[in-house]
Amino acid sequence: MDNDIRKLLEGVRDGSVSIEDALLEIKKEPFVDLGFAKIDLHRKVRQGVAEVIFGAGKTPEQILGILRLMKQNGQDSVLVTRMSKEAYEFVSAEEELDYDPLSRTAIFGKCHEPDGIGTIVIATGGTSDMPVAEEAARTCEIMGNEVCRLYDVGVAGLHRTLAHMDEIMSASVIIAIAGMEGALASVIGGLSDCPVIAVPTSVGYGASFGGLSALLSMLNSCASGVSVVNIDNGFGAGYIASRINHMETRS
Amino acid sequence: MDNDIRKLLEGVRDGSVSIEDALLEIKKEPFVDLGFAKIDLHRKVRQGVAEVIFGAGKTPEQILGILRLMKQNGQDSVLVTRMSKEAYEFVSAEEELDYDPLSRTAIFGKCHEPDGIGTIVIATGGTSDMPVAEEAARTCEIMGNEVCRLYDVGVAGLHRTLAHMDEIMSASVIIAIAGMEGALASVIGGLSDCPVIAVPTSVGYGASFGGLSALLSMLNSCASGVSVVNIDNGFGAGYIASRINHMETRS
Amino acid sequence: MDNDIRKLLEGVRDGSVSIEDALLEIKKEPFVDLGFAKIDLHRKVRQGVAEVIFGAGKTPEQILGILRLMKQNGQDSVLVTRMSKEAYEFVSAEEELDYDPLSRTAIFGKCHEPDGIGTIVIATGGTSDMPVAEEAARTCEIMGNEVCRLYDVGVAGLHRTLAHMDEIMSASVIIAIAGMEGALASVIGGLSDCPVIAVPTSVGYGASFGGLSALLSMLNSCASGVSVVNIDNGFGAGYIASRINHMETRS
Amino acid sequence: MDNDIRKLLEGVRDGSVSIEDALLEIKKEPFVDLGFAKIDLHRKVRQGVAEVIFGAGKTPEQILGILRLMKQNGQDSVLVTRMSKEAYEFVSAEEELDYDPLSRTAIFGKCHEPDGIGTIVIATGGTSDMPVAEEAARTCEIMGNEVCRLYDVGVAGLHRTLAHMDEIMSASVIIAIAGMEGALASVIGGLSDCPVIAVPTSVGYGASFGGLSALLSMLNSCASGVSVVNIDNGFGAGYIASRINHMETRS
Amino acid sequence: MDNDIRKLLEGVRDGSVSIEDALLEIKKEPFVDLGFAKIDLHRKVRQGVAEVIFGAGKTPEQILGILRLMKQNGQDSVLVTRMSKEAYEFVSAEEELDYDPLSRTAIFGKCHEPDGIGTIVIATGGTSDMPVAEEAARTCEIMGNEVCRLYDVGVAGLHRTLAHMDEIMSASVIIAIAGMEGALASVIGGLSDCPVIAVPTSVGYGASFGGLSALLSMLNSCASGVSVVNIDNGFGAGYIASRINHMETRS
Amino acid sequence: MDNDIRKLLEGVRDGSVSIEDALLEIKKEPFVDLGFAKIDLHRKVRQGVAEVIFGAGKTPEQILGILRLMKQNGQDSVLVTRMSKEAYEFVSAEEELDYDPLSRTAIFGKCHEPDGIGTIVIATGGTSDMPVAEEAARTCEIMGNEVCRLYDVGVAGLHRTLAHMDEIMSASVIIAIAGMEGALASVIGGLSDCPVIAVPTSVGYGASFGGLSALLSMLNSCASGVSVVNIDNGFGAGYIASRINHMETRS
Amino acid sequence: MDNDIRKLLEGVRDGSVSIEDALLEIKKEPFVDLGFAKIDLHRKVRQGVAEVIFGAGKTPEQILGILRLMKQNGQDSVLVTRMSKEAYEFVSAEEELDYDPLSRTAIFGKCHEPDGIGTIVIATGGTSDMPVAEEAARTCEIMGNEVCRLYDVGVAGLHRTLAHMDEIMSASVIIAIAGMEGALASVIGGLSDCPVIAVPTSVGYGASFGGLSALLSMLNSCASGVSVVNIDNGFGAGYIASRINHMETRS
Amino acid sequence: MDNDIRKLLEGVRDGSVSIEDALLEIKKEPFVDLGFAKIDLHRKVRQGVAEVIFGAGKTPEQILGILRLMKQNGQDSVLVTRMSKEAYEFVSAEEELDYDPLSRTAIFGKCHEPDGIGTIVIATGGTSDMPVAEEAARTCEIMGNEVCRLYDVGVAGLHRTLAHMDEIMSASVIIAIAGMEGALASVIGGLSDCPVIAVPTSVGYGASFGGLSALLSMLNSCASGVSVVNIDNGFGAGYIASRINHMETRS
Repeated sequence: MDNDIRKLLEGVRDGSVSIEDALLEIKKEPFVDLGFAKIDLHRKVRQGVAEVIFGAGKTPEQILGILRLMKQNGQDSVLVTRMSKEAYEFVSAEEELDYDPLSRTAIFGKCHEPDGIGTIVIATGGTSDMPVAEEAARTCEIMGNEVCRLYDVGVAGLHRTLAHMDEIMSASVIIAIAGMEGALASVIGGLSDCPVIAVPTSVGYGASFGGLSALLSMLNSCASGVSVVNIDNGFGAGYIASRINHMETRS
Repeated sequence: MDNDIRKLLEGVRDGSVSIEDALLEIKKEPFVDLGFAKIDLHRKVRQGVAEVIFGAGKTPEQILGILRLMKQNGQDSVLVTRMSKEAYEFVSAEEELDYDPLSRTAIFGKCHEPDGIGTIVIATGGTSDMPVAEEAARTCEIMGNEVCRLYDVGVAGLHRTLAHMDEIMSASVIIAIAGMEGALASVIGGLSDCPVIAVPTSVGYGASFGGLSALLSMLNSCASGVSVVNIDNGFGAGYIASRINHMETRS
Repeated sequence: MDNDIRKLLEGVRDGSVSIEDALLEIKKEPFVDLGFAKIDLHRKVRQGVAEVIFGAGKTPEQILGILRLMKQNGQDSVLVTRMSKEAYEFVSAEEELDYDPLSRTAIFGKCHEPDGIGTIVIATGGTSDMPVAEEAARTCEIMGNEVCRLYDVGVAGLHRTLAHMDEIMSASVIIAIAGMEGALASVIGGLSDCPVIAVPTSVGYGASFGGLSALLSMLNSCASGVSVVNIDNGFGAGYIASRINHMETRS
Repeated sequence: MDNDIRKLLEGVRDGSVSIEDALLEIKKEPFVDLGFAKIDLHRKVRQGVAEVIFGAGKTPEQILGILRLMKQNGQDSVLVTRMSKEAYEFVSAEEELDYDPLSRTAIFGKCHEPDGIGTIVIATGGTSDMPVAEEAARTCEIMGNEVCRLYDVGVAGLHRTLAHMDEIMSASVIIAIAGMEGALASVIGGLSDCPVIAVPTSVGYGASFGGLSALLSMLNSCASGVSVVNIDNGFGAGYIASRINHMETRS
Repeated sequence: MDNDIRKLLEGVRDGSVSIEDALLEIKKEPFVDLGFAKIDLHRKVRQGVAEVIFGAGKTPEQILGILRLMKQNGQDSVLVTRMSKEAYEFVSAEEELDYDPLSRTAIFGKCHEPDGIGTIVIATGGTSDMPVAEEAARTCEIMGNEVCRLYDVGVAGLHRTLAHMDEIMSASVIIAIAGMEGALASVIGGLSDCPVIAVPTSVGYGASFGGLSALLSMLNSCASGVSVVNIDNGFGAGYIASRINHMETRS
Repeated sequence: MDNDIRKLLEGVRDGSVSIEDALLEIKKEPFVDLGFAKIDLHRKVRQGVAEVIFGAGKTPEQILGILRLMKQNGQDSVLVTRMSKEAYEFVSAEEELDYDPLSRTAIFGKCHEPDGIGTIVIATGGTSDMPVAEEAARTCEIMGNEVCRLYDVGVAGLHRTLAHMDEIMSASVIIAIAGMEGALASVIGGLSDCPVIAVPTSVGYGASFGGLSALLSMLNSCASGVSVVNIDNGFGAGYIASRINHMETRS
Repeated sequence: MDNDIRKLLEGVRDGSVSIEDALLEIKKEPFVDLGFAKIDLHRKVRQGVAEVIFGAGKTPEQILGILRLMKQNGQDSVLVTRMSKEAYEFVSAEEELDYDPLSRTAIFGKCHEPDGIGTIVIATGGTSDMPVAEEAARTCEIMGNEVCRLYDVGVAGLHRTLAHMDEIMSASVIIAIAGMEGALASVIGGLSDCPVIAVPTSVGYGASFGGLSALLSMLNSCASGVSVVNIDNGFGAGYIASRINHMETRS
Repeated sequence: MDNDIRKLLEGVRDGSVSIEDALLEIKKEPFVDLGFAKIDLHRKVRQGVAEVIFGAGKTPEQILGILRLMKQNGQDSVLVTRMSKEAYEFVSAEEELDYDPLSRTAIFGKCHEPDGIGTIVIATGGTSDMPVAEEAARTCEIMGNEVCRLYDVGVAGLHRTLAHMDEIMSASVIIAIAGMEGALASVIGGLSDCPVIAVPTSVGYGASFGGLSALLSMLNSCASGVSVVNIDNGFGAGYIASRINHMETRS
């Protein structure tokens, strides 16, 4: 930001920019206001990731409108999360989408080539955690990460977890996804020495209280390398894992 | 109870028992009323276990009074739980007690000889769970069970758990005690095929909410053989484990 | 497990097993990976019980797939829990099932002959608790236990409970199932001297908060022999009761 | 109130009361403002009960001040609840009080002669509930009720409850006081056919959550005649029971 | 109960009752077991009220079955609560019912003539609380009470409450029904000197959390004569109010 | 009120008003009782605002009935909130309404001309908060306020918030509406020096717990000028903002 | 801010400000960094209020350090909230403070002359709410508001509230402070037509859950003009009330 | 682990290792059992970090015992967290410690030289969050990271946050620490494009509910790159940040 202001100020000093224009520029909004949404067009540049449309609570028309605006601005890779089948059908009549009904995600354009530090392992406690896991997996993939899926490796059958020690030990980042008691995060956190992102899911009944049980479990993990995102937030976990997996490109 | 009533009725029929006496007998209270407490004197016979005084919320004088009454009625083995050091000092001036400050339990008389089906394994997630574990262990011991202690085998260091597979696989009953995320119960429940009694503890901070996190975890355990008692209820777990471990003596 | 590794090592020493094969064997997964699920084929041997498919969150196709795999591996007795009518209709077109719409459980194959220590009493507070009770009862039955049903014996009509003192006193294990205030567990726990598994149910309204009231009640039971499973978890209670009722076969 | 206004209006009409005085009278505050408290001096007349000072959060000086004001206004019977020993010592240096350290209540003046419909039974689940029970009992007594105390009759020892069927069946009102799982209210509510006031107490630990467990239990009671007051609110229960026990004096 | 046993014993003594018959009689269940429900046929005698069928969670067939059994046993007045329109239509094809769709209650037979101490006032905070209020009102009416309805007198328009001071001051018992912040109970409790039964309702949104807000409010009422029943429990409130309103018939 | 009573009393004194009439007048209800609702007809005068019908839990017939009564009493501007499409269609067949399906509000008559101190800014964190925001906006507008909408200015894109510093700095009152973590209220509260009314919304999933997360956030705001209304209570926020924005008309 | 940047840019254009200096100026922090705190020195100008030091969690030395810095920068009126007696004694050895032990607030310098629109009424439900009320009152006073205290006017004694109708009706803003069930806010909100700021307090016990009961009550108030601040947040309420009471100085 | 087993197996094959020794080796515990704790001596090698002793719930003697064992095994850098002053004084009599009373952490040995990818920024919302922040900072430092502290940059004074845009934009990882409403995490998460670890703190009062408010806020953050650890868990945040900051050393 410094550089931008500096250039602007240099322009003011040498007369090539008027004070009014400078003022205007400083206040110019780096987004387009669609009325119902303010779409940030510079985020890709600023954050180095594909653009994301959080589909929950948006009408099909709104999603299409946002997608088109992004496309017009040169965005070639967009992820839509929490997209209903109805929204998919409406939008795909106009724009080509790769839709996954399990995770309710759609990808416009292509996934980036994997260019991260290593592989992101996505492990789930059970079969029912798969929608969340696939949301995470597709988020990782569109952002240029290699993904290894380890589904249904819950701790009640520890041999199923241990059978994948190789993948766990060699992962760059691990996303541990579980409902019910959420113990998977602690076990994997204890076995591995890479950052572990834990995702509690709303899978369960009774005293799982919509994922609260798994959430509290993961927050209280006795394994030290575990941080947690919101219940069922596969996208968030994938996004963070991707950021971590691209750490070497920073410095 | 049928038998008692039948005898009574036979006595009434043959005139050896008056109607008034029979009525009285039926209503006779099988306990002594100390004013502040009603002490059940037949429980030992009825339930085959040592008598227990729940020390919390009782004054040293009350504990001593109850203990003496039990002693007078022939009870030779009494467990006092949640007994403060002050209460211990007061009571032990009068009656000989084996007091353990860690678990705050006192034993009057002697422990029964171990006569259960097998060994009760008591496992804890961490060092801080030991007070609860010792309350369970001493409860088991006074009720005639052999106990094997596996402390600090939390799941974040799974090799510490697995190092004790022999004990776990050969246990008759397992008491799994853990605070924080309470994952120990699920891991042990998955490894073993005996009944597992899970005890959440209030060990932890922040989002452990006084043991709530471990409690919910254990209730939602994906391992099928796990049942749960109240937070920090080492006595209850030991008591149930002992009942189960003496099952073969029933039929 | 020791024995297995010992044999393997002996094979390595005497040359009958190559090092590569031994390594492979140790890592060989004792389950079949169906993609959406990892099915443990040795559990029957290891835990001595019928196999169970937790139907919630699985598609009819997935349930059928798992069932067939089990059948192919010689499993002759499978319990499917939380199975929707739709899933039942789909699966039963291919495989013969004994389906109970009340408890939403299906049994493939036959129940084991009762060979437990004694009878498992299943008591409910009210009529509305019956679906959970039947899930427990059928779980007990497929695992080889005699079951005695005492339904609608809630504590507000104590004479209904007391009318069944004989069954309660002679039970091997009792499963006490109640919603609302869940007092049944305490009353039965006080009357009986066998292990009591308490199941809170979501029956109730308002401040029952989906079973939380009964759950807390049961966890705080003043009766000492009561342990608790998750809200509405009839299967879990039946499974644990069966384990306890087969204790004498251990040593 | 109609009568008061009517008299005032008649006075206005016949000239014996000026308009200004009438206005003033209507607005005249039926309490004395001590700055820190507004003491209602007519409550005794209006509600037919002894005056009560809720001692919690009041300094000894404030309690003394209020007591004196009441005394000056002819109040001859005052109950102070939640009074610390310090406050008692300060106030009793000036005014004679009958102080009970267990319930932390003090009575100034004398209790009314019992003149209610019948006897109020006060039952507790355990010994530790006695402070709350005595607060209720003394409230009942100062308001002119005969009280029958049944302490430590918790449902885990049902014979102790049943031994007192006579008292329970003949009670006019029953106050059922219990912590932990609070099942006492349901059992007594089922046995009796008089109004039952349930008081949850904070006795317990772990998942009793400071009385929440007993509170929810009592609110969800399957017995129909049970209403509930706040946790540890012995005074409130006694006050309501007394109102009910004096019903016949209404019409 | 004493009398019954005494007579039995006298019969045994004089030989008119055999021991076996006496034993049988003592254990004879004072209810009919329909399989899905155990119907108490003596409750009417024992508790002096019309019989009640709690309709929630019962099928139309079950309700009809219970109703018929009651009718066969001479019960001439039955209240069915929480009865769906479907259940009503099914049952009313066979038995004549007075159904109120607002409160979802049905009355079989006739209401008792009002014979209570006085009038029961039923007040609600708003229009939306009417279903709960009508459940209470019809419960009161079938049990022989005169009812005065004061609906929509919430405290935000205090003049609406005060306009009914006459009814409030002359009530025998008041049922105060409110959702949202539930302040009505405190205001009425302060204005009146009769017992007040407070019923929190689930009316509201957001932080009313399904009635929790009103429930806590009412439990914490600063007015002393208020006791509380479960959220939306109009029946319970009516039942208790009726018990209190018939107090003078006891002694 | 004094004046009214004074006039009445003067009438009584000079004989122009009988005592009975005076009594009656004092008790006369300043509302019309429709049975299901008591409609306050003087509120407009007393509070200087348009009349409001809270549509939730009212039938279309009831809404129409209330609206007509208001109209008959000269009310020319009525706001109906939480009005379903069905209710709108029913009522609009009889009375002309300006209905907004997004906020589910209807306006009868016309909005007052803006006559407040300044502009009320309504800001939302995201697109999904718009229904609540429009309920607030239309409430403000019918009560005579100029409204400036700033939608989708959530803090994750701080430049979008900062781009509107001018509007924020010059607002008379700000309504900050956000779900999820509700941070918007704190950021705006820190930037602005006018009163800020925060509205948590139920937008979010998982650990947002129906708006609880945003609600707690806003209550704990580290910015000092923020007060909070109920979750999704756009009407309440608009109503309060309008009151504040008309402050200068008071003195 | 526009003006500042404009001036800076004009300076750059006319050469009187170098680009480096302009950059620096833009980034210059309008606060002093004390290491443990960043003290905003321009807030007074920006927000027109006295400076406030939130004393909780600050050492006496830190409070003194911040106070001195403010004093050096010309601040002549500072409020310290949540100041322990120890902190007061330490600081007052160096700087003159007007300390109130009840509210634990200290005022440095003098209160502004009252210059608001009208009077701020501060009402409490009970005596125990006074510490919070005085924190609010002193906050109002230092910010130039006239305050009218109405303490102990809780709704259980409605005549005490109504006795102050004059003050309530003529208030400019009302702060309604109550613990327990918090009904005061609704009653006052219904009686008055000015903005009402509700402050729940932690006064109460049992199911008041540290103020949660009053908080929920106030958020769910059926009176429309009520907004809420955090439990025990007297300062916040006073601050907001003062902002509202100075509205006319804006335009 | 493969390698270890392979070597073992090769030893068995070539006869240099007996089968018994191989079995023993496989089961040999890679920790020392102190009775109260099982100390993992290989963790340093396995996870590349300094050893940590979680001091809470451990006696000074236990901490000293563990520290000595680690020292004997060549560990030259140990962090003790949650160490009371008493424990510090006891241990430092024997071993040299660098103790920080604010964060209650002690460092034995020296911090590693910073060798991470970049700088870890640790930002707090307020002064009171410093103990948690310093626990995080010292954890980062002992694990070889450069730390930049930004304390008291809460969002209510946004200019204080923005003044540090340079540090925020150039951070490798950011730890955002805040109590109350926890909005700092969202604001920083929106400004930055590196991984953000959010730490809710228990700073606050009333509706902060011991950190629950901040915890929920952070879990619901609308900024995508934020993951969360337990309340007050400064150590955990520092540990994870260090893992991430050392990512480039993996591949």
